Amino acid sequence: MQSLTVELGERSYPIYIGQNILSEALITPFIKGNQVMVVTNDTIAPLYLDTLLKCLPGLTVDVTVLPDGESFKDLTHLNLIFDKLLECRHNRTTTLIALGGGVVGDMTGFAAASYQRGVDFIQIPTTVLSQVDSSVGGKTGVNHPLGKNMIGAFYQPQLVLADISVFTTLPDRELSAGLAEVIKYGLIYDYTFFCWLEENIDGLVARDPDILMQAILRSCEIKAEVVAQDEKEGGIRAWLNLGHTFGHAIETHQGYGRWLHGEAVAAGTMMAMALSLSMGWLSPEDVDRARTLFEKTNLPILPPDNMGEDDFLELMSVDKKVLNGELRLVLLETLGKAVVTADYSKEKLMRVLSA
Amino acid sequence: MQSLTVELGERSYPIYIGQNILSEALITPFIKGNQVMVVTNDTIAPLYLDTLLKCLPGLTVDVTVLPDGESFKDLTHLNLIFDKLLECRHNRTTTLIALGGGVVGDMTGFAAASYQRGVDFIQIPTTVLSQVDSSVGGKTGVNHPLGKNMIGAFYQPQLVLADISVFTTLPDRELSAGLAEVIKYGLIYDYTFFCWLEENIDGLVARDPDILMQAILRSCEIKAEVVAQDEKEGGIRAWLNLGHTFGHAIETHQGYGRWLHGEAVAAGTMMAMALSLSMGWLSPEDVDRARTLFEKTNLPILPPDNMGEDDFLELMSVDKKVLNGELRLVLLETLGKAVVTADYSKEKLMRVLSA
Repeated sequence: MQSLTVELGERSYPIYIGQNILSEALITPFIKGNQVMVVTNDTIAPLYLDTLLKCLPGLTVDVTVLPDGESFKDLTHLNLIFDKLLECRHNRTTTLIALGGGVVGDMTGFAAASYQRGVDFIQIPTTVLSQVDSSVGGKTGVNHPLGKNMIGAFYQPQLVLADISVFTTLPDRELSAGLAEVIKYGLIYDYTFFCWLEENIDGLVARDPDILMQAILRSCEIKAEVVAQDEKEGGIRAWLNLGHTFGHAIETHQGYGRWLHGEAVAAGTMMAMALSLSMGWLSPEDVDRARTLFEKTNLPILPPDNMGEDDFLELMSVDKKVLNGELRLVLLETLGKAVVTADYSKEKLMRVLSA
Repeated sequence: MQSLTVELGERSYPIYIGQNILSEALITPFIKGNQVMVVTNDTIAPLYLDTLLKCLPGLTVDVTVLPDGESFKDLTHLNLIFDKLLECRHNRTTTLIALGGGVVGDMTGFAAASYQRGVDFIQIPTTVLSQVDSSVGGKTGVNHPLGKNMIGAFYQPQLVLADISVFTTLPDRELSAGLAEVIKYGLIYDYTFFCWLEENIDGLVARDPDILMQAILRSCEIKAEVVAQDEKEGGIRAWLNLGHTFGHAIETHQGYGRWLHGEAVAAGTMMAMALSLSMGWLSPEDVDRARTLFEKTNLPILPPDNMGEDDFLELMSVDKKVLNGELRLVLLETLGKAVVTADYSKEKLMRVLSA
């Protein structure tokens, strides 16, 4: 097992990463009271709920099972968690445990942030995506029909337990979507890691546990480093959104859940790279290397056919990075270094959107 | 005009209290971006919205008008604020302004805490209750059918502007309900202020502006002092909930909005005092003095006839002060000093509930 700490002063917390590490000894030290609410979904519950429950002896444990999918990440389904917490009389010392992917993690985190104005929570992410992305950094929340993740809170867990053994039951498409974010870390922050990914992409797609563990550890390290520098996204943290402004537009346009988040990020990253290329920052070879890596990971490299430039403009205008009416984008200065800027050619952006 | 500061480190903020102080010069220095969303209700909008809008020149101002009343303080109506923010493309630099009573303030504050994971907000409380209570201390949130204020956040405003001129349009019943909390401050924290209230209660009920201003200023000072010592209610802040555990049970049982919050707090405070009396902490004279003060303020001193001890026990068991299954109550050690304790006779509590 490996561990690292997300350094956020009094809100610091550890991430444990390993194989078959779901155990009482690791979890219970982080539970203060005697009540626990496990939040999971109807795909994960049959697979791992029993294993988790065995790690929680002597505690009053209740369970909320949500329907699986991004389309249920809304206020209505968030309220199911509050219903259950109140029906079961959970008090301020309760601990929420998120067992599932990013949707379960984000919703449970926001429920924990808001229930009685804040209770503890623990994340047990069960997808590649949630292990490397939503479990680090405390962004919690739900979607609104007019924009993704528009309602939420910055709220840190007590512990993240990333058990890579659960990937044995992860569908191929989910694996690939998670690897899109792993590739993103190389692109924005660490050229050496990007090169390592080029060498090891076949092993990752084939689910080699040792290679997967290295990729997850390095991704979490990068995200933790970035978040520690900028918890509330005043600056460098926005780098993590490479491909996300385009990607969120794709997800919203197609209807939440149709495109997986990572798939939209892959296509969105290629759009950000096309713009970076036309600004003269990246070379055609740089773009080819990223495209090849996404293709080997079985990820889409183009946005959906049915989206035009007007769709993108409309949906991108609600992005959280809009500042006083101006859309800032995350672009690449070079492979391994991102930049957040509104200083790009609008004409070149339009050409990318209409391509 | 008087002003005081709620001292909370980097989250400190000023409260301005005065007559006819709604003005551009006081508000605009606290607005960072160029977008403002005013949230108000359909009672207050016709009275004061135009005056406020004149204080916001050169800004893009949108307005959300909520239905008036505690029964609308829920996730469904909270979402109306998010709808409007997104429809009008408000970004992270927007400022929400709450123009209304406690319901508007609590909902706007929680919307500000949650929209894009946190934007600025300003409180312009228009009732006695909200000027002395919800505007100080950053408790925001909405109700759940199973419990009051169960969903929310601690989130501080940039500014509170308490203009007592708006009391000219405040219904008598609302005035009295607000004064219940003013009396509470004397009871829990400041015997001298309690005596001052006994002397000045007729002036308060008659809406003498100078007396009202003194009462509001002293109440805000006390609340600010308490909150500065204990922002997230680990200790002394719970004193502010004198009468609230009983009171919330009354409000929930009767249906939100039937009993005004302050009315429920008055009856609840008399129950807490009855228990304090039977514990031997208060004298019968102490209880009489408080009863007289509530009566002169036209407040109820008994819970509703249709509530029995089972109703109270059921509803009080979800109170946020329940700790590991044990209900802590705010009682009085003496006039002017509260105590939070689970160390009371359960038998005596039952006698109070069944009285």
